[in-house]
Amino acid sequence: MTILPDGGLQLAGLEEQSLQPGTKGLPITEPLRQHMVGMQGWNVLAADTSLPVAVLKTSSLLHNLDWMRAFCARYDVVLAPHGKTTMSPQLFGAQLANGAWGITLATAPQVLAAARCGVRRVLLANELVAPADIRALLALLRDDPAFELFVLADSAEGVRRLSDAAAGAALGRPLPLLLELGIAGQRTGCRSIDDARALARMIAAAPGLQLAGIEGYEGLLVSDDRAADLERVNTFLAGMTDLARQLDAERLFGAPHILLTAGGSSYFDLVARAFGAVNGLSRPVLPVLRSGCYLTSDHGHYQELTAELDEREGSRGSAGEGLRPALEVWSVVLSRPEAGLAILSMGKRDASYDLGLPHVLAAHRPGEGPVSLPDGARIDKMNDQHAYLRLPEESGLRVGDLVGCGISHPCTTFDKWSVLLLVDDDYNVQRAINTLF
Amino acid sequence: MTILPDGGLQLAGLEEQSLQPGTKGLPITEPLRQHMVGMQGWNVLAADTSLPVAVLKTSSLLHNLDWMRAFCARYDVVLAPHGKTTMSPQLFGAQLANGAWGITLATAPQVLAAARCGVRRVLLANELVAPADIRALLALLRDDPAFELFVLADSAEGVRRLSDAAAGAALGRPLPLLLELGIAGQRTGCRSIDDARALARMIAAAPGLQLAGIEGYEGLLVSDDRAADLERVNTFLAGMTDLARQLDAERLFGAPHILLTAGGSSYFDLVARAFGAVNGLSRPVLPVLRSGCYLTSDHGHYQELTAELDEREGSRGSAGEGLRPALEVWSVVLSRPEAGLAILSMGKRDASYDLGLPHVLAAHRPGEGPVSLPDGARIDKMNDQHAYLRLPEESGLRVGDLVGCGISHPCTTFDKWSVLLLVDDDYNVQRAINTLF
Repeated sequence: MTILPDGGLQLAGLEEQSLQPGTKGLPITEPLRQHMVGMQGWNVLAADTSLPVAVLKTSSLLHNLDWMRAFCARYDVVLAPHGKTTMSPQLFGAQLANGAWGITLATAPQVLAAARCGVRRVLLANELVAPADIRALLALLRDDPAFELFVLADSAEGVRRLSDAAAGAALGRPLPLLLELGIAGQRTGCRSIDDARALARMIAAAPGLQLAGIEGYEGLLVSDDRAADLERVNTFLAGMTDLARQLDAERLFGAPHILLTAGGSSYFDLVARAFGAVNGLSRPVLPVLRSGCYLTSDHGHYQELTAELDEREGSRGSAGEGLRPALEVWSVVLSRPEAGLAILSMGKRDASYDLGLPHVLAAHRPGEGPVSLPDGARIDKMNDQHAYLRLPEESGLRVGDLVGCGISHPCTTFDKWSVLLLVDDDYNVQRAINTLF
Repeated sequence: MTILPDGGLQLAGLEEQSLQPGTKGLPITEPLRQHMVGMQGWNVLAADTSLPVAVLKTSSLLHNLDWMRAFCARYDVVLAPHGKTTMSPQLFGAQLANGAWGITLATAPQVLAAARCGVRRVLLANELVAPADIRALLALLRDDPAFELFVLADSAEGVRRLSDAAAGAALGRPLPLLLELGIAGQRTGCRSIDDARALARMIAAAPGLQLAGIEGYEGLLVSDDRAADLERVNTFLAGMTDLARQLDAERLFGAPHILLTAGGSSYFDLVARAFGAVNGLSRPVLPVLRSGCYLTSDHGHYQELTAELDEREGSRGSAGEGLRPALEVWSVVLSRPEAGLAILSMGKRDASYDLGLPHVLAAHRPGEGPVSLPDGARIDKMNDQHAYLRLPEESGLRVGDLVGCGISHPCTTFDKWSVLLLVDDDYNVQRAINTLF
């Protein structure tokens, strides 16, 4: 319980709930109170758990929490980590306890789930358009006058919907909107400064709404030409800053701070440098980063991108050590049907496959010790419930051996597990955490 | 409640449970008892639900249940539909009520979840190797003497593990094993008849075990050359039948029936024809199909394969009409940032993307009616929470319009939803069903 701080969230109910047999990863045949998980003496390498099992290395989580707190302090920016990555209230709690200003989320159901666990400030980094979703979030704001929610808008229709709903909802305060600036050829967001200015005027004039800042998402600018990516990111961030100055000159912002927010998990250093330096506006600027994947990093896509980030940080970084991958999925060898092939009990239902397949880290024979894997051993295919581990050379890997994998893209691994297990560096299970997908 | 028969499963607890705000698709701000969902008067096309929402067309489910019951009767085979596809106890119940002999599952946690809901006969179409998973399933068998479980084996190590555990578990009955015959270059299963025979002898002689039949999975034989695929499938099925005759001649089978099981969702007609005709063995043969995707079909990968199956069935089929796609995901247009682009509130968290991206079926403006989409409108990319709908020509599609999509590969859409909504043909919500992933 005390391994991760809870940030003041209401998590006791989760610890009291009974985990049911059939919950992936748990070796239980009777319901078990969640707070008892850490007292069972389970060790993953001893094959005490059901397999596959998703584990988080506590030491890596704590390192990454420290790393990001120091990073934000260094640049004088705040963090609203993207909670959609993990959707785990216990991890939200740890992030809030480590100084996070709020939690970013992507959908109305995610906001409702987070609010139920005690999160008090949410940046909904998405347009809010569906009538039922607007109604649900305004009801939340009406019933809880201290709950803070920022919402994006990039269209007149979107603003009209929010204004009509907010004006009729008796919130007792305006709904703070962030104008989304987009990038040609990318996702949401106004495509031109002129469109953005027109929309900002509409928001500032709309009943029930308040223009609270500007939002953008640079994280989609990932191509094979990183130098060009970085230049485009910096140009985009400069455009956001410039837009903020123009809207401020028109006195369109209506909240105590001008919120400037961007930052996925690839380029948040550039965002911190660009926004941390903005000054001279009529009211204070609050730069908000939104990285979601920093907390667990990974062994694939984001590890590469954060390695580049570490390099850009150079000597400014935390004694040279960057973010550590925290999330692993362990499975068992079900079959060795051919000399060059092992079939693992882990598939598309257990590990992400959208930005690369899982990376084999280690193999272990319970009761004996590590099993060496040949160079070039790699997973080249997954079915729903199986992975194909190719072994290019002779290997002693047997049916029943355990295989630990790192993953690429935490978001699409977390959403495959309702419970993950925190482990120490020797894979002793310390506690369970939940996800609310 | 009575829209789908429950097959005698214990589902009342699910209907009594309170659905929580934040459950994807549900437009609720207070907990709602599940059995009340159908009384809310929600209509998806009226944008009454949260969006995205996953819906199942009841009429299509009922059609497909009928279709498959008639199919199995025609060939005198039984069905143990693969439950991993949906992991929905209500759908298991409907399948059992429509004559399913049992439920096939892929992992020990899935078996535990199904058993908790009252499923009484499970074919675990997978090797069972992890010690904790073996313990959990043997505990289930020990505590419930009438529960039936068939398990696969393809290695001596696997058989040893099961024999050691079963011999020590005081089950009061042998654990029935199915010998898995594999295919060179494919997944699990013995690669040669000699290996299979040796393993069959080992199973027949092992304390606590019983050789109950032969299992294979032909469903991975999907290439660009369908004629060659069909030939390989038929050769493989003939190999299984031949192996059954050899093992029977050695009197290695120990159960009242010789179970012969194969059949994914692509070629189950070939399996029915091959196994339905086997006779002349020393004890009765029970041919068991395992298709999981027939129940919902899809608008992509499986629709194509089942269209081919319908063609092979020809006039033998159900008055010419094949399986109907039942599963759709509806989302809302969040943004129209460029003339040729609409961003939908549906992403990798909501719809499958492993065997093709979602297929746009229709657009609808709540309160007005259908919105026409240009030919060639298609989704060409998804992020975690967004889809990119490309509009090759002028389109009146606006922010706030709803877009309905079919999906490709039901398994990887079901696992993204804890609750799906059954709808009538006018998209009135009739009830909620659960998944237990």
